[in-house]
Amino acid sequence: MAKQLIECVPNFSEGRNTKVIEAIVEPFRKKKGCSLFDHRADKDHNRLVVSLVGEPESIQDVVLEAAKTAISHIDMEHHKGSHPRIGAVDVIPFVPLQNIAMEACVELAHSFGHRYYQETGVPVYFYEEAALKSERKRLEVIRKGQYEALKKEVDNPERHPDVGEPRLHPSAGATVIGARKFLIAFNVNLATDDVNVAKEIAKAVRSSSGGLSHVKCIGLSLEERGLVQVSTNIVDYQENALYRVLELIRTEARRWGIPVKETEIYGMVPAGAILDSISFYMQTTDFDPNQVIELRLLRMLRDNEA
Amino acid sequence: MAKQLIECVPNFSEGRNTKVIEAIVEPFRKKKGCSLFDHRADKDHNRLVVSLVGEPESIQDVVLEAAKTAISHIDMEHHKGSHPRIGAVDVIPFVPLQNIAMEACVELAHSFGHRYYQETGVPVYFYEEAALKSERKRLEVIRKGQYEALKKEVDNPERHPDVGEPRLHPSAGATVIGARKFLIAFNVNLATDDVNVAKEIAKAVRSSSGGLSHVKCIGLSLEERGLVQVSTNIVDYQENALYRVLELIRTEARRWGIPVKETEIYGMVPAGAILDSISFYMQTTDFDPNQVIELRLLRMLRDNEA
Repeated sequence: MAKQLIECVPNFSEGRNTKVIEAIVEPFRKKKGCSLFDHRADKDHNRLVVSLVGEPESIQDVVLEAAKTAISHIDMEHHKGSHPRIGAVDVIPFVPLQNIAMEACVELAHSFGHRYYQETGVPVYFYEEAALKSERKRLEVIRKGQYEALKKEVDNPERHPDVGEPRLHPSAGATVIGARKFLIAFNVNLATDDVNVAKEIAKAVRSSSGGLSHVKCIGLSLEERGLVQVSTNIVDYQENALYRVLELIRTEARRWGIPVKETEIYGMVPAGAILDSISFYMQTTDFDPNQVIELRLLRMLRDNEA
Repeated sequence: MAKQLIECVPNFSEGRNTKVIEAIVEPFRKKKGCSLFDHRADKDHNRLVVSLVGEPESIQDVVLEAAKTAISHIDMEHHKGSHPRIGAVDVIPFVPLQNIAMEACVELAHSFGHRYYQETGVPVYFYEEAALKSERKRLEVIRKGQYEALKKEVDNPERHPDVGEPRLHPSAGATVIGARKFLIAFNVNLATDDVNVAKEIAKAVRSSSGGLSHVKCIGLSLEERGLVQVSTNIVDYQENALYRVLELIRTEARRWGIPVKETEIYGMVPAGAILDSISFYMQTTDFDPNQVIELRLLRMLRDNEA
């Protein structure tokens, strides 16, 4: 039987200081039983997103180690960035990947959340499949008003953390921990510096304002580059194809005569999402993932492993 | 060190009789040391294309076994189909896949070719990297006029086989054996029954008449479906991107106001070709194959194997 594998995608509120970024990432390179699949720091977002794959025990140990480094270096009182956040370690989602059920990832998120608070003193909110209150399934509800607003409202029972005292850590804020399906982060950059265009398009595309189900979306400014970005999260790529998100954004952008300049798949993506989209653009019929030679080699090696 | 792997893509001149097709394919399912990655029979082409991956020794043994079955069942005197062919076993290419050089596949093609003639009595032509005469690098030169013409011209020294007497096998014709890079077979179906449209487009697209280098292309009729097909082989997908072939065909078809109805990736395709094309259609910048989770898992498993 092939071993249990999960993905973990911790998000840290540091995308500019390369020394701090390296210090956070270092344990991920060294830890046995897990592989650093991807990490990318964005200066505008001022955020570091890491993708780790490995066995549940190793992942939990190493994420806690990296989190302690992040907490000791990042001060939310002085953090600025275009991406919503409430803490130095902003989000820690666990994703079932191989031979493990979502329910097991939910339990893992809960037990990890308690350990995390004990060892760091940073209060924890549970989200998505691990949410204890239904409204907290949605990350944007927990992060409403971001660090600055939450600091003032945390003693309001509605905003109490799920683990820890009703106050934020003085420099590291709070952390959102959960279990969820594989998420695709997909950014579309538009050739304009008018952030309202990105915000209007985001409104048309995201589920919360009547757009595509399973898509979260915000419009933001990439000031350094003089562009704006429609930044999307596809929370269920099997229900909501990648190409459909891009094509809807292209369509909406036409209202202002603004072309898509470029797009960016941020972090990891499952092969299925790519194949689904290539079938659309290339009009392939009956195209089967088993026709991709590397996917068959993976199957061959897995069969040998079993 | 990971083991040697080659792909072999034997093409058989039977795409209609399911009993014969199953008899040919059966040994590929059973043989140890190789995996049947793909096989597809096309009624219009009247042709069976198989993709096998495995160790060189196992592949050679099993291909010979299947070839003997094909030779005993297929009579070229009564074969009709829209795809060019000169034999019951029409082409046997060997493709280096892992830990083996092209030169080794050329040697393998040559020694296999001699064994093949000895055991079957079917004369052999060597093509692509294994060609002994430079003009025979091109499959279409060897297959000129197909079975029917070759039968008459084979005693002309220019058309003598590379292995065997200068006459065709009375029912199985001849076989072309060689070594080549990974080839993508890509068909584009157009919503018209005018085969001249497909032929004209093919002329514009293929290298031999001034189109895209590394692309072979013919226009043919899919009579059963009332469509025509531009059937392409991309012989070097790294030099000639998949999307570019489709977009050029779409462009040329516009001359007649004829839309692309559907396309078909025929057999196996490397992940790199798909990712290259998705980057074009989705305008992704800096997209790295290492972002595809399955490709990273494959790398992880290979590292463990080594």
